[in-house]
Amino acid sequence: MNETAYDPQNIFAKILRGEIPAHRVYEDAHTLAFMDVMPQGEGHTLVIPKAPARGLLDADPASLAAVTASVQRVARAVKAAFSADGLTIFQYNEPAGGQTVFHLHVHILPRHEGVPLKRHEGGMADDAVLAEQAGRIRAALDG
Amino acid sequence: MNETAYDPQNIFAKILRGEIPAHRVYEDAHTLAFMDVMPQGEGHTLVIPKAPARGLLDADPASLAAVTASVQRVARAVKAAFSADGLTIFQYNEPAGGQTVFHLHVHILPRHEGVPLKRHEGGMADDAVLAEQAGRIRAALDG
Repeated sequence: MNETAYDPQNIFAKILRGEIPAHRVYEDAHTLAFMDVMPQGEGHTLVIPKAPARGLLDADPASLAAVTASVQRVARAVKAAFSADGLTIFQYNEPAGGQTVFHLHVHILPRHEGVPLKRHEGGMADDAVLAEQAGRIRAALDG
Repeated sequence: MNETAYDPQNIFAKILRGEIPAHRVYEDAHTLAFMDVMPQGEGHTLVIPKAPARGLLDADPASLAAVTASVQRVARAVKAAFSADGLTIFQYNEPAGGQTVFHLHVHILPRHEGVPLKRHEGGMADDAVLAEQAGRIRAALDG
């Protein structure tokens, strides 16, 4: 396989197809947002395009624009839901760039003064905790 | 001053007005890209909107879309110019989120296997080095 080819068996593709569950917080025609199961902090949320794209460089510009609009919208709700002092946005491409799931995704991390991020490989979050956090973000989106 | 107000005396506003120099790599009607003077690695490039915005949340959606399109375009050239294995994209909001200059900006970092990023506060880069790197990216954009 070409190393830059899109693999439709990646876990985000499975989430998009409903084959595996996710704590969803936002969805529109072109994008989906859900909780990261290996969070680097409370409220760690991901936004992905529905269209297949491995990363930033192969994404269709219209799809990428839709992702950006959703990132802004979801980030506003994440900041409100967690009373964050700031937001850190990450987007990783290829293993050297930090990418571990090969479907384009943008990380949204609510930040608080003096609270460092945890490592992404720090372990799986408790399902009930993620469900509660997702509910908080959905409520902020509806507010 | 409101902590979330836009300060037109920030250094990126001064770069946009041509009051201080920058190693520019790309410019269009709505965005500008230039080398970070305190790079976390070789080829560390920034993309900013021309319209005033403190960060992700207060950016006009059209301006944000233009930034995203330029990030994709410039990232492709940065990857080519530095023969990168991957790309890491950062966007920081407010001090708690890592922001130090309060004009919306997106970091593009070319990455190579096994090469960690340096700290952003690691010091000013040599001007001639940045000029050479900017020239490489401009050449890749034109290619």
